[in-house]
Amino acid sequence: MWKPDRRSSTPIYLQIADRLQHLIAEGEYSPGSPLPSERKLAELFDVNRSTIVQAYTELRAHGLIESRPGSKTRVSLHQGRDQGALPPEWHRYAENGVFLPNVPFLRHIREALAQNPSIIDFASGKLSLNLSPVQEINEIMRNCVYQPEPENDSLLGFPPLRRALAAFLQKYRGINVSPDSILITSGSQQALYLITQCLLSPGDAVAVEAPSYTLSLSMFQSAGLRMYRLPVDEYGVRPEGLRTLQKKYRIRMLFVNPNFQNPTGTLLHEERKKLLLETAGKLRLPIVEDDQFSLTAYGLDSPPPLKAETDAVSTLYIGSFSKIAASGLRIGWIVAPASVIRRLSDARRQMDLGFSVIPQQIAAKFMASQYFDPHMDRLRRELILKRDTTAEALRKHLGDLVEFTVPQGGLHLWCRILPEVSDSRLLDEALRQRVAFVPGSVYGSGPGYMRLTYARPNAEDIEPGISRLAAAVRTAVRAAAE
Amino acid sequence: MWKPDRRSSTPIYLQIADRLQHLIAEGEYSPGSPLPSERKLAELFDVNRSTIVQAYTELRAHGLIESRPGSKTRVSLHQGRDQGALPPEWHRYAENGVFLPNVPFLRHIREALAQNPSIIDFASGKLSLNLSPVQEINEIMRNCVYQPEPENDSLLGFPPLRRALAAFLQKYRGINVSPDSILITSGSQQALYLITQCLLSPGDAVAVEAPSYTLSLSMFQSAGLRMYRLPVDEYGVRPEGLRTLQKKYRIRMLFVNPNFQNPTGTLLHEERKKLLLETAGKLRLPIVEDDQFSLTAYGLDSPPPLKAETDAVSTLYIGSFSKIAASGLRIGWIVAPASVIRRLSDARRQMDLGFSVIPQQIAAKFMASQYFDPHMDRLRRELILKRDTTAEALRKHLGDLVEFTVPQGGLHLWCRILPEVSDSRLLDEALRQRVAFVPGSVYGSGPGYMRLTYARPNAEDIEPGISRLAAAVRTAVRAAAE
Repeated sequence: MWKPDRRSSTPIYLQIADRLQHLIAEGEYSPGSPLPSERKLAELFDVNRSTIVQAYTELRAHGLIESRPGSKTRVSLHQGRDQGALPPEWHRYAENGVFLPNVPFLRHIREALAQNPSIIDFASGKLSLNLSPVQEINEIMRNCVYQPEPENDSLLGFPPLRRALAAFLQKYRGINVSPDSILITSGSQQALYLITQCLLSPGDAVAVEAPSYTLSLSMFQSAGLRMYRLPVDEYGVRPEGLRTLQKKYRIRMLFVNPNFQNPTGTLLHEERKKLLLETAGKLRLPIVEDDQFSLTAYGLDSPPPLKAETDAVSTLYIGSFSKIAASGLRIGWIVAPASVIRRLSDARRQMDLGFSVIPQQIAAKFMASQYFDPHMDRLRRELILKRDTTAEALRKHLGDLVEFTVPQGGLHLWCRILPEVSDSRLLDEALRQRVAFVPGSVYGSGPGYMRLTYARPNAEDIEPGISRLAAAVRTAVRAAAE
Repeated sequence: MWKPDRRSSTPIYLQIADRLQHLIAEGEYSPGSPLPSERKLAELFDVNRSTIVQAYTELRAHGLIESRPGSKTRVSLHQGRDQGALPPEWHRYAENGVFLPNVPFLRHIREALAQNPSIIDFASGKLSLNLSPVQEINEIMRNCVYQPEPENDSLLGFPPLRRALAAFLQKYRGINVSPDSILITSGSQQALYLITQCLLSPGDAVAVEAPSYTLSLSMFQSAGLRMYRLPVDEYGVRPEGLRTLQKKYRIRMLFVNPNFQNPTGTLLHEERKKLLLETAGKLRLPIVEDDQFSLTAYGLDSPPPLKAETDAVSTLYIGSFSKIAASGLRIGWIVAPASVIRRLSDARRQMDLGFSVIPQQIAAKFMASQYFDPHMDRLRRELILKRDTTAEALRKHLGDLVEFTVPQGGLHLWCRILPEVSDSRLLDEALRQRVAFVPGSVYGSGPGYMRLTYARPNAEDIEPGISRLAAAVRTAVRAAAE
């Protein structure tokens, strides 16, 4: 006996309409014959009567059934056969598939930024345009020679880029890796997408940091993963709870961003790194390490990645140029064991057959060029300046109301508002004041936290931006107190 | 009562091992306590005893359980706690996810081509390198100025490219469309991927041409679609069966490649185009029209796409530059109603956040440049030459054994071998003779068909290539007759 599937993403009334259409097409109900009453169908399918009313309305709109006042609903004599051509019901198609819509707060911010260029942007998690090495990339591009399908069109990505990356990872990150363990992706987002789609199954449990940018990635939910949280404090994620989570929920994978975490900016403490690797090792639990910010370290040395530890066989390592150089290139990578790389690259063929060789050529040349180190030096200097300006402005304009730790690298400052405040009220007020940030709840924190990406606004806009933000915070705090 | 899921892609014995591990972790079986006998578990889970043996072996390898001769299997006293760090079982992770492996024939051919450059390649479905406008693209690239995130970083793709495409589609394809109805994709493969992932749900029925390249796209199967076939003859796909398929299987979408179809090279007849649109319109059935080859038409005019018809509101239109210009740019597009474009672009954000602006800049300039028309003229001349050389060589070397229609556009010639022959035997023999083609069965035809992509080998290699192929065919025919 057919019943609607309550776990399906298709609304129940549409499932019922589809079912009835099927029965009509099969001849179960022939043209002109009466259909069961709404009450009877509601019982049969174990739904509210209003759901049946909706389903009938749907079928009526298609001309499949007809009702006249005081008479039973009947199968239409036409059955849609004689109708003119109507467009397909595109909105119904658009409700299909596994992808959930993106987080509403983020969409709201994006639309506001697109509509009003005078908004000072602490929300977009990337560098300001003037911090991109635009001249250098143009210089390299002018000297690039496009070669269609060079070197056998490798599934793993442009071979010279993978070789350049192997040298880069050795030199800057202390990771020993062969070019064949590297898969080039369209930014780190595609790397995460491939991992969730190819190595995990819907229903699998994963552990994530809280707060964490993964909690804002609708993609994790679209993949049907159950996310369990490991709390992050000022020394980074706390690994103690991992074993308990694993026992309780059979965690299949752990996602971390140890160095200058997004959104909190924290650096995972040495001792914790050791404990995390040890625990994951004993549990044979794969760690996905996202390492996009390490090279921005404001001190002397970049903190080492988990992957560089001698026993980091558990680690899938993800990197990208988007946060430290050029987001316009969309170059990311995964370092993984051969069996994993094979699986991911085979699946990627079904998704997009890989991507253009041109940005890969440019990235390969850029990272091995004389431009790279001076670019990183300039980037660090500018980021320190922006961080200092931001921290100072926060102390000046909001010193009595907020609390934060000054980050030692990365692009973000994580700021807690001490009095009670509503996130959505605060965001609306900030956008009205023409300043944008991301509410911490997007990343899974409680209310009253803000992620401020100081890397994003131009240096001279930071002080006015924080001043606008302060006005918004004060308004929102007053509103919450009333 | 838990049972293994026989439809899951995880092998049964691993599901059982996972289940037992779960029960041990939950304390159902405590350290040191005996486990049920293999026979008993086999009954309980309704599987063969050998499956339980496998599951126990798996758990033993992890140190979770222990067996001694002449005594019951018991939960290990250690429970894996005191073990050293072992790597995660990557091969098990690689078995997860929804992506099915790609078609073995295609993988086999790809590997052979990568290993042996002396193979003459009629298999790869694309242009030879010398038919790409490499010089023109390099000329354009030298004059490109990289701009990070120009024009608000649109989710639909680089706005100047969408504007150039709208003009291009109007001029060359007779399609009236606003730039906001165009989504730029990473090749047509990503366009198809987005459609299958976002507009359809697993279990949905779709109609495809048979033979058709969609049948070689493991992606359709990975998306869990049920594919029903509409036969293709020398006038293209036969639309008569569509209504019956729809009634019987509740078809949700129809995929066609009307102009110079891949793999058969056929052009869908005018009358059939009309009937197809009319039928789909009445059924309110969306048509996905892949139109990658039309501009190669060897005659005077390019055949119009379905999308250009006045009533083609049912059509999602897909195009790409890969087959007519530069596969290295990886530029494709979808033309669709606004609600569909919104859905696809929102989901794409979760997959890869869009792709590099550089190839989009280059493509936009190329299609509006003075280079475009001369490139297409040269391309058509060269393709006619290659087609003629191929047809002539086939008649000369295999005239008694094969039958084919001379294509009037596109890159492919579809060739039937008259005597009985085994596809895998023929492919092996051909690769041994250093010539590659794709067996028609990959595209859903019966045995004894070959897709010969004459566009791919260099002109001077065609005659020797067909001569090698002839030797392979004769050997395979003899083998089948024995």
